[in-house]
Amino acid sequence: MEKQKIKITVREVAARAGVSTATVSRAFNHKGIVNPKTYQSIMEAATALDYKQETAGDISPNRAPVISYTNRNNSKKAVDKRLLIINIPAISNPFYTEIIKGIQSSALNHQFDFLLYSGHIKESSIDTFLELVDYVKAQGVILLNLISEELLARITEIIPVVQCCEYTQNEFASSVGINDFTSTQRAMDYFLSTGRKRIGFINGPLSYKFSQNRLQAYYKAMETAGIEVQSQWVIQLPDLSPDMAFSSVVKLLSMPDAPDCFFAVSDVLAAAAIRAAHYCRLKVPGDILVIGFDNTDISHLTTPSITTVNQPKFQLGFLACELLCEKIRNPESEVKHMLLNTELILRESTAVGAFTAKGY
Amino acid sequence: MEKQKIKITVREVAARAGVSTATVSRAFNHKGIVNPKTYQSIMEAATALDYKQETAGDISPNRAPVISYTNRNNSKKAVDKRLLIINIPAISNPFYTEIIKGIQSSALNHQFDFLLYSGHIKESSIDTFLELVDYVKAQGVILLNLISEELLARITEIIPVVQCCEYTQNEFASSVGINDFTSTQRAMDYFLSTGRKRIGFINGPLSYKFSQNRLQAYYKAMETAGIEVQSQWVIQLPDLSPDMAFSSVVKLLSMPDAPDCFFAVSDVLAAAAIRAAHYCRLKVPGDILVIGFDNTDISHLTTPSITTVNQPKFQLGFLACELLCEKIRNPESEVKHMLLNTELILRESTAVGAFTAKGY
Repeated sequence: MEKQKIKITVREVAARAGVSTATVSRAFNHKGIVNPKTYQSIMEAATALDYKQETAGDISPNRAPVISYTNRNNSKKAVDKRLLIINIPAISNPFYTEIIKGIQSSALNHQFDFLLYSGHIKESSIDTFLELVDYVKAQGVILLNLISEELLARITEIIPVVQCCEYTQNEFASSVGINDFTSTQRAMDYFLSTGRKRIGFINGPLSYKFSQNRLQAYYKAMETAGIEVQSQWVIQLPDLSPDMAFSSVVKLLSMPDAPDCFFAVSDVLAAAAIRAAHYCRLKVPGDILVIGFDNTDISHLTTPSITTVNQPKFQLGFLACELLCEKIRNPESEVKHMLLNTELILRESTAVGAFTAKGY
Repeated sequence: MEKQKIKITVREVAARAGVSTATVSRAFNHKGIVNPKTYQSIMEAATALDYKQETAGDISPNRAPVISYTNRNNSKKAVDKRLLIINIPAISNPFYTEIIKGIQSSALNHQFDFLLYSGHIKESSIDTFLELVDYVKAQGVILLNLISEELLARITEIIPVVQCCEYTQNEFASSVGINDFTSTQRAMDYFLSTGRKRIGFINGPLSYKFSQNRLQAYYKAMETAGIEVQSQWVIQLPDLSPDMAFSSVVKLLSMPDAPDCFFAVSDVLAAAAIRAAHYCRLKVPGDILVIGFDNTDISHLTTPSITTVNQPKFQLGFLACELLCEKIRNPESEVKHMLLNTELILRESTAVGAFTAKGY
């Protein structure tokens, strides 16, 4: 039988080497991305302490690597606080409010507090983020932002992660999202049912997974309907701000064969399209039909109110947090990818015929 | 000469007594609000360690108490991360986006990271908040939410605080806000200049300082103009959601002597008032004029676009963070209260005469 001794943790190695636990994890798992000098001192510290890294063979290759954060939790004297970090891309989008409420509801059940980290996690900011997660002793992370699989893998090395809304289907982290394909298909079917064929598409940056998926669904629907898409019908915006959408739609509406329908990937962009139509002396829905996405406040406050795809925002947040808490409780739990259903809410912006304000 | 010895910190007293540093600070500063048993064990720990509390006489009575967080910082082995906590009431309000950008810009200059704490700090949640601030080893707090002076005092006992937007004028924490009085006065002057007298006021909860201030300014302006306010002209909402505003305005517009102008304390409420007017077959601005507040996206996406009071949002956030960093660097720095100017942005909702869509 092996000699029984107190298990040396990543935290102790990190302390001896004078680096963060995140760096130690990276040194063991992705030697290439750690500064060689730092790598050297971590290895020296590990040797001096007789640190034993669990080998990859100990866990199923289909599961997320759980070594580091298991050690990390064990190494804490006492968890006097349970904390999650929620990464939101920007707090501008009212879309996130309901998602945060869903997360809050689940977190409360599991006695977790949470703090929001605002901003994109990129190659240039991943170290700052990992150090911060370590500094505040968080136990789990929910990402509302799409990041590369490589960066995602680095985060999951040191802490359990769940992806919410934006996700890639990988073996590192569970995800909860919506089915962009069927959601877009339903909006397109509605436009096509009115007999209109010149359907425009107002898209956000293609760095968003939802922009990629919805655009693909748009092309597929047009192809199935036997309509040839004119390239100018697809407005590809550099960001989700409404100003560019307004100008682009105004420009497009002055061209021959301009669209008589617009599908926008967010309500704010749909609102900008309605303003643009009004600016061009066109009526919505008389001349132009508009469908938005998200069912945020703005969709029922504009005139006309906006037909939109409702996302189950509360449930997205709630389920993401439930999956995260499960992963924290049981690091061996399976990685799951869940898609929730949406619904098309019909309002005035697609009410073909004379427009009358009917409240909301 | 006194015996030189290593100074015992609040953190060491807290560790020995098995409580948070926040509780130790409270025990020393506000004995009455600490559980007697806890108080007893803290005092025993302090005696055993020979902890010397700096006396109130050491600092000017006009300055915020700085004892605890000074000790707190000294007690850290090494500050390997600089972290601020920003308390936002809810992430729903797009108003906060620009404020957060301002904070970010200043924080970056001072090498601070920041995390957002979403929710109201109340009597029932203050302990959780203080423990969290301690747990994550934050060095400063910006409050975007109004809290009672008593709770504010408890936070400033352990960490430097700056109030942003919502504030009380006290000696504990600096503040940056806007002049609600002159902002409201300017909007009222505009309404009155059109010759209209039946001015309605759509207000948020009176728990917000801005709701109190703007309502006061409204009454003052009406009094100065010699107009008697009919009580039903003031719509007092239980929250800032637009649904209640819509119903209340619809109801009010069906009454005799209904207002022909509405001043709303936020753009979302102004948008709801416009929808309500449309629902009642009234034209904005033909029949009803509407002015909002904040100059958020929605104000230029509705039809008609909304005349609104622009707050210098970026500057509010930037200055709040500058004041906080100054306080962290120099705990003796003076408590300051700053008021920034606003401007009235004229759009279609007050363009008296025939309405024409003119873009934005």
